[in-house]
Amino acid sequence: MERELRPMDAEQLREHAHKMVDFIADYYKTIENFPVLSQVEPGYLQKLLPDSAPNQPEGLQNVLDDVKSKILPGVTHWQSPNYFAYYPSNSSIAGFLGEMLSAGINMVGFSWITSPAATELEIIVLDWLGKMLKLPEEFLSSGQGGGVIQGTASEAVLVVLLAARDKVLRRVGKDSLKKLVAYGSDQTHSALQKACQIAGVHPENCRLLKTDSSRSYAISPDLLCEAISHDISVGLIPFFLCATVGTTSSTAVDPLLALGKIAKSNGIWFHVDAAYAGSACICPEYRCYIDGVEEADSFNMNAHKWFLTNFDCSALWVKDRNALIQSLSTNPEFLKNKASQANMVVDYKDWQIPLGRRFRSLKLWMVLRLYGVENLQCYIRNHINLAKYFEGLVAGDTRFEVVASRIFSLVCFRLLPPDNNEDHGNKLNHDLLDAANSTGKIFISHTVLSGKYILRFAVGAPLTEERHVTAAWKVLQDEASALLGSL
Amino acid sequence: MERELRPMDAEQLREHAHKMVDFIADYYKTIENFPVLSQVEPGYLQKLLPDSAPNQPEGLQNVLDDVKSKILPGVTHWQSPNYFAYYPSNSSIAGFLGEMLSAGINMVGFSWITSPAATELEIIVLDWLGKMLKLPEEFLSSGQGGGVIQGTASEAVLVVLLAARDKVLRRVGKDSLKKLVAYGSDQTHSALQKACQIAGVHPENCRLLKTDSSRSYAISPDLLCEAISHDISVGLIPFFLCATVGTTSSTAVDPLLALGKIAKSNGIWFHVDAAYAGSACICPEYRCYIDGVEEADSFNMNAHKWFLTNFDCSALWVKDRNALIQSLSTNPEFLKNKASQANMVVDYKDWQIPLGRRFRSLKLWMVLRLYGVENLQCYIRNHINLAKYFEGLVAGDTRFEVVASRIFSLVCFRLLPPDNNEDHGNKLNHDLLDAANSTGKIFISHTVLSGKYILRFAVGAPLTEERHVTAAWKVLQDEASALLGSL
Repeated sequence: MERELRPMDAEQLREHAHKMVDFIADYYKTIENFPVLSQVEPGYLQKLLPDSAPNQPEGLQNVLDDVKSKILPGVTHWQSPNYFAYYPSNSSIAGFLGEMLSAGINMVGFSWITSPAATELEIIVLDWLGKMLKLPEEFLSSGQGGGVIQGTASEAVLVVLLAARDKVLRRVGKDSLKKLVAYGSDQTHSALQKACQIAGVHPENCRLLKTDSSRSYAISPDLLCEAISHDISVGLIPFFLCATVGTTSSTAVDPLLALGKIAKSNGIWFHVDAAYAGSACICPEYRCYIDGVEEADSFNMNAHKWFLTNFDCSALWVKDRNALIQSLSTNPEFLKNKASQANMVVDYKDWQIPLGRRFRSLKLWMVLRLYGVENLQCYIRNHINLAKYFEGLVAGDTRFEVVASRIFSLVCFRLLPPDNNEDHGNKLNHDLLDAANSTGKIFISHTVLSGKYILRFAVGAPLTEERHVTAAWKVLQDEASALLGSL
Repeated sequence: MERELRPMDAEQLREHAHKMVDFIADYYKTIENFPVLSQVEPGYLQKLLPDSAPNQPEGLQNVLDDVKSKILPGVTHWQSPNYFAYYPSNSSIAGFLGEMLSAGINMVGFSWITSPAATELEIIVLDWLGKMLKLPEEFLSSGQGGGVIQGTASEAVLVVLLAARDKVLRRVGKDSLKKLVAYGSDQTHSALQKACQIAGVHPENCRLLKTDSSRSYAISPDLLCEAISHDISVGLIPFFLCATVGTTSSTAVDPLLALGKIAKSNGIWFHVDAAYAGSACICPEYRCYIDGVEEADSFNMNAHKWFLTNFDCSALWVKDRNALIQSLSTNPEFLKNKASQANMVVDYKDWQIPLGRRFRSLKLWMVLRLYGVENLQCYIRNHINLAKYFEGLVAGDTRFEVVASRIFSLVCFRLLPPDNNEDHGNKLNHDLLDAANSTGKIFISHTVLSGKYILRFAVGAPLTEERHVTAAWKVLQDEASALLGSL
């Protein structure tokens, strides 16, 4: 006999979701008990789960028990106060509540009509955030531009690169795709190369200008000018420049104003990737790092990194929304409706790669309202102060050196090779990273700058306090002592 | 004085999230009180919200009050039992719990190391689902293929089109991009055209073969053969074919086996888009509709449509995962780690457009475990029976006709023009759609088939019962009577 499934019974939803709330709150209560970096071996989970889905339903408690015993050991705890790897990916109560509400309403907001509130709230909160960042008016919805929530910075750079590609190809003809050249630096996020690859820009036409420590790994405007001149002289067509405010390796800040002027005089689309550091620019004292953004055609900042908005929520502003729409719009019969046909509304499907989209503005709205601007500024400043504190600890131990200048909440540092042998230095720091992460007490990551293997200590998890930074430094010192002692 | 923000305090999380659970459960309890299709005017929300974010924090109750009074009126209620538009986008308790847990853990699973459980659970549940669909072994993770969760079917077709593009360009040289030809039909989802546009395939080389009622709007293998032969004869290079099982307009099913053989003999990547109807194929009696999938290179089904998994969760399987990885991988220094470098693990960042990714497998896992295969089959059958019931109601009213054969849970129908004037018929049905949706009692959508404006009644919301279908039909009959009476 087939009994009826009631998959959305309100009272069962209430009962089960309350259980899940307690499960998650308990997780946060005990989050420091887990190794930050999961210590499982590849393939661990296949040994613990059956080969196929169950025919009959199982109880929630069973599943939660499995989450505890089988899933959580395989989780790397990004929300742990002892997480200092990559860049943070903030969760917050407000962001979490926004995710819950979005999942509860569960609408698919491709066009305005499919939930006017989703589109309109997104326009409004991106204007709010744009004003907090003091972006030029042209990026706000009142003019020809506007903001949109993308999933990630990779999608943000892709959609504007496509808009730039098509804008120039409309002028020079689509057979010229092979002539298009995009510019970034060897510090630009790999998303630029991936976007070029997706868009059909030839890989050898994706110029990653060399940077070095003399300019703190920022792009040299002179080098850019030379590259552009050379490319034009051989018949290529410069079309896209990606500058970064806060590179992934070392938070380098490209000189926006100078680069923007070069881009403008060459008819190049100028995109600014401030995925990580953009959040800091809501503080007046850090706003200078995006001075020059007025020269940009597009600007991106990930609210899901260091801005308490659960992943994913990547804010993108453009000055010319029509350029995006011309590249990305589709208009099949089954989606036609009065409001869209009359051009009275924004249909965000035409600003992004996918058709469907979640109600992501809810979580950003809740973050802004439940915390308020001043609290958010304090939140950023607190992390930067903790990074300064860590920097001081490193500087106070002569066995280490701070590498590259600390600007925001990332400290790049390394253990000095006792014999001044750089090859040895790289292995030593690699081993230190491994040793520290294997303790389970902290998780940090690395990069390579000027051929040197560098450790990255990124402060930014919402639960991190000074005591966690102190303890992390002790782990690093202890592991360094052990390594150096065994030499 | 700057007071400290505690954005992830476990006890405050518990308290506020319990409040949100009740808010959402109450929403589901009263969901039938809302107009299904939001009745607000464009720009309504800007009038209700301030121009900028608050400086000081606001209380949760304030925000929830605003959700009730300002946001919900602008929501189109996809979860309403009276929602019959487009295709469904299922929410369920299990899916919702999975979203909560994913948002709670809030990790970013680009590489295996960033949470081994996220990658491994995804591999496992896509194997489970692949087995439920009786996909050929080659699509499972044990061989050269495997499954991956994409955000949407648009992203699924894009990533495989990119893999196909690069595979052929590696052979013929990248300057041949302009010669590549992709095939679909005038019923294929607009995502194919958008993918071609993004990938730099020339728009005139995206062939949308004509379909008609004689083949129930399915692709004719003969037409495809002709098109391919002609394209080859003029020096073009056929590289991609997208077939659909359950088209968006009318649930047409393309003949996979015949198309697949043509694709194979021409070295064309064969993608099957079963975004909507794939869910039905977990029932033995509907599995026949994907017979021939063994000829495909890739297969896609949206668990977020009709499979109780909250949006977004689009399941994609490929036979050759290396083709995806060759197109989409990046390997920047800052992401390098032992497990990835040793090739011991899957890094799903290389199977998709974005870098970051959510823990989406949790919700699919919870749906499969909390409901079980048999319940899920019953769930599908129940909706199909409700669609049959609606089809019978339409057939019983001589003023209407059922258009195109009903296969799954979508009924295409229209009001017959009393004067046999087809132009009049189109306006009449357009007006009927408007009138019915304006009541707020139901939401249906439309398409155009063979020049005729057709109404679509898609059963599939989790709360829909027979009484809702009966009531919807009464709304349509009443509005039809009013329209016909006023002629």
